[in-house]
Amino acid sequence: MLRGTWYISPTPFAEGGEVDTAGLERIVAAAASWGVDGITILGVMGEAADLTAAERETVLSTVAAAARGKVPFAVGCSAPSAAIVAANARRAAEAGAAAVMVSAPPLLKDTDQIGAFYKGIASELPVIVQDEPAATGVTLPVSALLAALDAAGSTVVKLEDPPTPPKIGRLLAQRPGLTVFGGLGGVSAYSELRRGAAGTMTGFAYPEILRAIRLAYEAGDTAGAARINDRFLPYLVFEGQVRVGLGIRKEVLRRRGVIATARTRALTPLPDAATLAELDDVLARVGLTPAIEPLQVSP
Amino acid sequence: MLRGTWYISPTPFAEGGEVDTAGLERIVAAAASWGVDGITILGVMGEAADLTAAERETVLSTVAAAARGKVPFAVGCSAPSAAIVAANARRAAEAGAAAVMVSAPPLLKDTDQIGAFYKGIASELPVIVQDEPAATGVTLPVSALLAALDAAGSTVVKLEDPPTPPKIGRLLAQRPGLTVFGGLGGVSAYSELRRGAAGTMTGFAYPEILRAIRLAYEAGDTAGAARINDRFLPYLVFEGQVRVGLGIRKEVLRRRGVIATARTRALTPLPDAATLAELDDVLARVGLTPAIEPLQVSP
Amino acid sequence: MLRGTWYISPTPFAEGGEVDTAGLERIVAAAASWGVDGITILGVMGEAADLTAAERETVLSTVAAAARGKVPFAVGCSAPSAAIVAANARRAAEAGAAAVMVSAPPLLKDTDQIGAFYKGIASELPVIVQDEPAATGVTLPVSALLAALDAAGSTVVKLEDPPTPPKIGRLLAQRPGLTVFGGLGGVSAYSELRRGAAGTMTGFAYPEILRAIRLAYEAGDTAGAARINDRFLPYLVFEGQVRVGLGIRKEVLRRRGVIATARTRALTPLPDAATLAELDDVLARVGLTPAIEPLQVSP
Amino acid sequence: MLRGTWYISPTPFAEGGEVDTAGLERIVAAAASWGVDGITILGVMGEAADLTAAERETVLSTVAAAARGKVPFAVGCSAPSAAIVAANARRAAEAGAAAVMVSAPPLLKDTDQIGAFYKGIASELPVIVQDEPAATGVTLPVSALLAALDAAGSTVVKLEDPPTPPKIGRLLAQRPGLTVFGGLGGVSAYSELRRGAAGTMTGFAYPEILRAIRLAYEAGDTAGAARINDRFLPYLVFEGQVRVGLGIRKEVLRRRGVIATARTRALTPLPDAATLAELDDVLARVGLTPAIEPLQVSP
Repeated sequence: MLRGTWYISPTPFAEGGEVDTAGLERIVAAAASWGVDGITILGVMGEAADLTAAERETVLSTVAAAARGKVPFAVGCSAPSAAIVAANARRAAEAGAAAVMVSAPPLLKDTDQIGAFYKGIASELPVIVQDEPAATGVTLPVSALLAALDAAGSTVVKLEDPPTPPKIGRLLAQRPGLTVFGGLGGVSAYSELRRGAAGTMTGFAYPEILRAIRLAYEAGDTAGAARINDRFLPYLVFEGQVRVGLGIRKEVLRRRGVIATARTRALTPLPDAATLAELDDVLARVGLTPAIEPLQVSP
Repeated sequence: MLRGTWYISPTPFAEGGEVDTAGLERIVAAAASWGVDGITILGVMGEAADLTAAERETVLSTVAAAARGKVPFAVGCSAPSAAIVAANARRAAEAGAAAVMVSAPPLLKDTDQIGAFYKGIASELPVIVQDEPAATGVTLPVSALLAALDAAGSTVVKLEDPPTPPKIGRLLAQRPGLTVFGGLGGVSAYSELRRGAAGTMTGFAYPEILRAIRLAYEAGDTAGAARINDRFLPYLVFEGQVRVGLGIRKEVLRRRGVIATARTRALTPLPDAATLAELDDVLARVGLTPAIEPLQVSP
Repeated sequence: MLRGTWYISPTPFAEGGEVDTAGLERIVAAAASWGVDGITILGVMGEAADLTAAERETVLSTVAAAARGKVPFAVGCSAPSAAIVAANARRAAEAGAAAVMVSAPPLLKDTDQIGAFYKGIASELPVIVQDEPAATGVTLPVSALLAALDAAGSTVVKLEDPPTPPKIGRLLAQRPGLTVFGGLGGVSAYSELRRGAAGTMTGFAYPEILRAIRLAYEAGDTAGAARINDRFLPYLVFEGQVRVGLGIRKEVLRRRGVIATARTRALTPLPDAATLAELDDVLARVGLTPAIEPLQVSP
Repeated sequence: MLRGTWYISPTPFAEGGEVDTAGLERIVAAAASWGVDGITILGVMGEAADLTAAERETVLSTVAAAARGKVPFAVGCSAPSAAIVAANARRAAEAGAAAVMVSAPPLLKDTDQIGAFYKGIASELPVIVQDEPAATGVTLPVSALLAALDAAGSTVVKLEDPPTPPKIGRLLAQRPGLTVFGGLGGVSAYSELRRGAAGTMTGFAYPEILRAIRLAYEAGDTAGAARINDRFLPYLVFEGQVRVGLGIRKEVLRRRGVIATARTRALTPLPDAATLAELDDVLARVGLTPAIEPLQVSP
């Protein structure tokens, strides 16, 4: 189950700034209708670090109810100490999650300690080891990633350390059976598949596109996969920009009719006028007209 | 009130790993008896980032009840987003705190945004701006610290960016009226006072020593202040070590009869045998026999 | 003169590992024939930090002789101390350079010192302030960039701090007359122009493409500029990958018949087989057949 | 030979800013008279990164001539690429050095590459692997340090990653025969010896003190070693401050009559008035009257 095209859900906020649970339910329903293999909540793009514990619980219980019987979900449980990760993971298990996702503790200096950290999680659910230098300030070499996997009893990695394609290659060369998800907004989705990725797990606002790339690739239609990738690449690159990308992504979800506002909890909470003008331009260039219906993508 | 010798309280844990509320009450009572001007909870040394929300509330309410009428307390409210800081600060105000302490959002890249972050806190309590590069990954130049103070409507800084003495000098040269607390375990307490610090705010296990240095200095007995500093410096340096210092500090509090265990939530939860042997050695060298009674320190 | 499409030259190495001066001469001649407005040598992509002083001088004197009367050149002069930068800049001036390019000193902690650093350069040539967090470990907020410009008496910035388009917007909002070059391999060239960039200065192996985007944009043909950008974007993104990008870039220059080997001084000196296979694939997808003749690009 | 008390020499500058070769000769003679086991030049404290290649050669040849037959010397050869390190190391060997010292390449992301880097050095001289996170931006876990040692064919490490004492313990637990030098200005010299250090290699301006601590410790007089450590600790801590420490150290060498100026190439080239006043104060407190004659230190 942990492979394919997983969608990382943002956390939608209402005009007043509170978590928009109706929007969250629409996200789950829409993502399921878009054909994703699973939904990951409370990750970096879900602004998990910017939610209160009560809000975190709201997101979890809302998604658990909305996803039950429809689509599996994974829960970001990252925290500075293994004790908190473990508590988050227990709650995820209770709520019916299929897996938990955990990145290194922020600003970890001694990467030889990564095994001790992951061992401390002791989750009953499968653990997705998230390689996330931008959000954690920690770069994990392949040897440390493998130590983390061993300690967590896991065989699933999600990579966000650019450039991801060669790192996938190094990981699989050393540990052939691993399931590796690409990330980083899907900008390198096609390259990641070429290197052996099992799919992508990212918050790109059109998971249908990433799914279509993957399905073509898995069907042996490499050229078709590349054509889809290249057709939508201008938008993938635009949405994939660090920091400002989340606001763009939410704005597109808003235009698709899924959520009510593009608000984030970042210091500049909404895309500025120039960014919105660029968005209009790039959507037009790649021929995307935002709608909640699944985008039909052919190679 | 926000000056003098403030004590940063650790969060004590029982053998089972849970927050030890009785220990916390003893910390408050002991610190008050040691003559501190205030207690700061839920800071970095309080392992705030490693507590669940429920544990955080436990610490806050326990200390609020224990401190009422005895000693003022400040509450570390740092979080990645201003919204969470604001929520933490509201709760601190309800609980009767004298101030809140807030560091920069972790891994902030664009320090020009620091004002927007502190403006978003909108606390009714005085804000202590904490300069904490080790825990946040963010180094704030003096210009950014001043922007943070202006945005927070604050005149109080706690410095942890080594070397602190010259930074105190630069801060006060540009903004003469500021209240600057030294930190970093008190290793530079005497130098900080020479540069104009209003005191220290740190978790050193013998706040009586830092208080005695300050009182001598404020009374004009510079040489006496230096003598106290130098007498205890071997222990100040030993406890002041990064990362391992917290476990040492808790072990000394345990030996002083204040808390039950030296447990932390770090990856190596207790000082190892070599560290304990060094501790015995250094305590003997400076003539400290841990006890809960206030240490009498004369210049 | 300091605007338009500048080409950052790599430093070519012969099979034996030494600087390939004939290759360097061919780079200058080829770049001039490709219509670039200038050539920048001894930058990050020129592996300046990996050259001995003698090799640095070899590169400088070779390019100076080859470029004289043909195309202006700028010289990367970055170094940890202003004294070395100043010495590098004097030598660049003697050699006939049009400008020098200088990034922040590596691992600078106190960004309030950036002005003192740039003031110490005291170059007689125009200074291009390079904003290069990846190579220096220093992120400069807009306020620090402006302080650097003021101290250097400069009005020219080259940006490599992603995402570059909004940072260009913030810079020009605060200092309207600035000349801002985009960088980062040209991946955001079109967006950078929309935000007001005066061009790009980067090592992308087909500067003709970046020039064509810019000429179309400057001629008011925004849609045409976007079409060129989008057509070649798969290759721009592929070559633009951090760390591995330089080897790709050199391999393409090799295939264009400009240099003899794709060798770099990085720890993995040549693109691996998987990367070369990807390169073949992406060049075919965008229709590029490497040749030394200028690529004709129409919107 | 590579054990004991090694002195890291600063690079003295004359009033005009140029390398002061006469001062350098006096440093060598003085250090030899102070009883050091060796001298290391062109390290971080030698401001190697701030010297031109010609100045680097001046320092090397001056010290080689002055040290010949008197005292062994090691040469800092660190550089971003192994090719430059190798060239530096060849020159050091020609000049008669006893060893070379090499830190990780600055800002190395993938610590799994550390072996490839050290293998590329291929020095005929013994290699001292320097663990220097502050100057390189790279934190090496014990596993990476061991990989570096293996690749370099080395058994000698110099540690600057605080806290050094527990890291010495972890290193020796995994590789019992290693020679580990402590560093960081000798602030933890006594603790480092307790953990098994073979000595210190640092730029502290009174190597006699570090030697006396070590000799007492090696003679089994642990208490005497501690007494010396504690007596001079206020000055060790003061000189040991990051960034400002070098200027203090040079000022003390100036007062000892060894060098002519305290100039550095840092952005604030001389200690300010407040720092000098603190220096007077601390020297008086520990009873040090700077002189070129060897300090007699008894436990």
